[in-house]
Amino acid sequence: MLKVLKFGGTSVGTLDRIKNVAQIIKKIKDEGHDVIAVVSAMSGETNKLIEYAESFSKTPLESEMDMLLSSGERVTSALLSIALNEIGYKATSMSGREAGIVTDNSHTKARIEHIDTTNMKNAINEGKIIIVAGFQGVTEQSRVTTLGRGGSDLTAVAIAGAIHADVCEIYTDVDGIYTTDPRIEPKAKKLDKISYDEMLELASLGAKVLQNRSVEMAKKLNVNLVSRSSFTPEIEGTLITKEENIMEKPLVSGIALDKNQVRVGMYGVTDKPGIAANIFTALADANINVDMIVQTVGVDGKTDLDFTIPKTDWEICKKMMTKFEEQSENIDYNEKICKVSIVGVGMKSHTGVASKAFAALANENINIRIISTSEIKISMIIEEKYAELAVRALHEAYDLDK
Amino acid sequence: MLKVLKFGGTSVGTLDRIKNVAQIIKKIKDEGHDVIAVVSAMSGETNKLIEYAESFSKTPLESEMDMLLSSGERVTSALLSIALNEIGYKATSMSGREAGIVTDNSHTKARIEHIDTTNMKNAINEGKIIIVAGFQGVTEQSRVTTLGRGGSDLTAVAIAGAIHADVCEIYTDVDGIYTTDPRIEPKAKKLDKISYDEMLELASLGAKVLQNRSVEMAKKLNVNLVSRSSFTPEIEGTLITKEENIMEKPLVSGIALDKNQVRVGMYGVTDKPGIAANIFTALADANINVDMIVQTVGVDGKTDLDFTIPKTDWEICKKMMTKFEEQSENIDYNEKICKVSIVGVGMKSHTGVASKAFAALANENINIRIISTSEIKISMIIEEKYAELAVRALHEAYDLDK
Repeated sequence: MLKVLKFGGTSVGTLDRIKNVAQIIKKIKDEGHDVIAVVSAMSGETNKLIEYAESFSKTPLESEMDMLLSSGERVTSALLSIALNEIGYKATSMSGREAGIVTDNSHTKARIEHIDTTNMKNAINEGKIIIVAGFQGVTEQSRVTTLGRGGSDLTAVAIAGAIHADVCEIYTDVDGIYTTDPRIEPKAKKLDKISYDEMLELASLGAKVLQNRSVEMAKKLNVNLVSRSSFTPEIEGTLITKEENIMEKPLVSGIALDKNQVRVGMYGVTDKPGIAANIFTALADANINVDMIVQTVGVDGKTDLDFTIPKTDWEICKKMMTKFEEQSENIDYNEKICKVSIVGVGMKSHTGVASKAFAALANENINIRIISTSEIKISMIIEEKYAELAVRALHEAYDLDK
Repeated sequence: MLKVLKFGGTSVGTLDRIKNVAQIIKKIKDEGHDVIAVVSAMSGETNKLIEYAESFSKTPLESEMDMLLSSGERVTSALLSIALNEIGYKATSMSGREAGIVTDNSHTKARIEHIDTTNMKNAINEGKIIIVAGFQGVTEQSRVTTLGRGGSDLTAVAIAGAIHADVCEIYTDVDGIYTTDPRIEPKAKKLDKISYDEMLELASLGAKVLQNRSVEMAKKLNVNLVSRSSFTPEIEGTLITKEENIMEKPLVSGIALDKNQVRVGMYGVTDKPGIAANIFTALADANINVDMIVQTVGVDGKTDLDFTIPKTDWEICKKMMTKFEEQSENIDYNEKICKVSIVGVGMKSHTGVASKAFAALANENINIRIISTSEIKISMIIEEKYAELAVRALHEAYDLDK
């Protein structure tokens, strides 16, 4: 098999950990696989360089930031290659440019346009292990670019797609995707497999491990993604793949919790056509990411609007809403809420999934303020103080600990 | 004028010093000059990376060392460019590759083969200040290489030669070349101008500032080199140029001192043709750099050989000389010696220069063990304890403090 592995900043955070990564790669190579490893900068390095730059300028040139920040991954790739050669394995580091990664010109947040795999294929044919400096590419004019947050994951997924690798393993300090956050529910179970769409909906469970941007790209390029740990490489991890590859489709795969939402309530809004559209267009124009929306028809031609926004957008939203004060009786904000979601591809073909959730929460006397559903997800807004209780109740209701 | 400036590790050793360098460049740009600045890694960075590599391997792959070590200069070039843009100057960093520097494949000690100046010329035409990451280039196959010790100086001199710059200023923490080491003779004077050949002979005075490899390249490419300080940029420094550019040729330019020599004495060597050739061929084959040689004809068909070697080659030399033990009565080594040299292009056309030196040393009761002369240099081996006294006596004898 051809395996693309990706090791994040924590996995290569010290010289000892780099040696550990060399052992992981050695084992995979010994099993007869070809290996392309993508590495991040040693943890702390990128932040140090950002601090350096900010000591000179609040708005450093983005093309220079790319020159600056791309150096950290080059260091790690060379060190890991040296470690592998030392234990008798032919390895070669490659910069993003050498790996053939061509991006657009959007410095600090470039998008990969195409990958010329010639160099990598030649090295693989020579039996070499390739260590690619993640997070970076070059423009058509051969100027270095970086891919933004989570960029090394993107490098790995894009390479796996371009070179038709059998699997792309993302190594972090977490050994896979769990049915829910184990810090909330110790009975949470690691999932063997999960579909791309479920993973995207369970973002809060995997955000630390896998960013949505990488999962989306894996889905688009049809890359089998594995989330596993470089600290416990003997544990198998979770395969994120297309739905067709999952034979037994679970009703519910996991319970996600999101505490970073604010509920905005607009009461007694004059119920005229277009009023909701006006409000949400204005919010979209301000780049505020509205999540859940509920509109209830009230009495006397008035209506109530309830919606949630990320806490980070709260201040801008408040400022914006002053425009609509005259059109409603009252606007209030509640940050003491949270969103609990149930995710599972099996929902599509089963009924009664939602009612089981409502019953489980009612059983604990938890009031649901907003409900929204999609094909594979049911989300509920509840009071924040019930967050953990709700997660545990739902986890049990769907037998996720079994 | 088009000026190539080079700032070493100490000059860019801290963020404040990088800001200082930005101010030096700003001033030169304000005077109407075009500027290409070549930078080293921040002091300490390269050694840190070498330590990292050596923690993995005693013999790390050289191509990987180049990938590793070339990152430090990239960081400095980006930071300096950010600092310049912040104070309102258009600047752009360039890697060795972007600056068009193509080398051979000798990783960690690559030789520059040619420089494609297109990129740099375009940037200069756009009014930009160019900040080149020193010490590095790429092979024809576009793999990064480094140029070895003093590599950033070579980058600067080679660029100055290729782009026909008017001057190449090497900034260090020393403000120029002195008639002798000011720590030995406080009356030492900074030289305004000196020829390439004198500079090469005075290596011990400038070794900290300019490596012979750079001076040789400057001579070959006819680059006007200036040694000056980034800590006192208001001081003019020393111009190293071709002899024709120096109108008034001083009899003696400076006094150099070298304490890193060992004198090897072979006594009672059978005086047969070819015996000296055998010995020195064997030394050359062992890569031992023999400096001064004196052969004295003795009595009874025996001869004495005296020569000096660098202290670092002492052990290998001893081992080698066992081969010749049978062909001489006695071999001894003396490390308590030093070499004092008088250098000046004016010697060529003047007589009596050497006798003045001998008189000055005799006057201080200093015995001369070996003498060797070249067109522009007189070197003498004396006892080490007289080193400083001899330097001061000679400095005064040639009126160098005037």
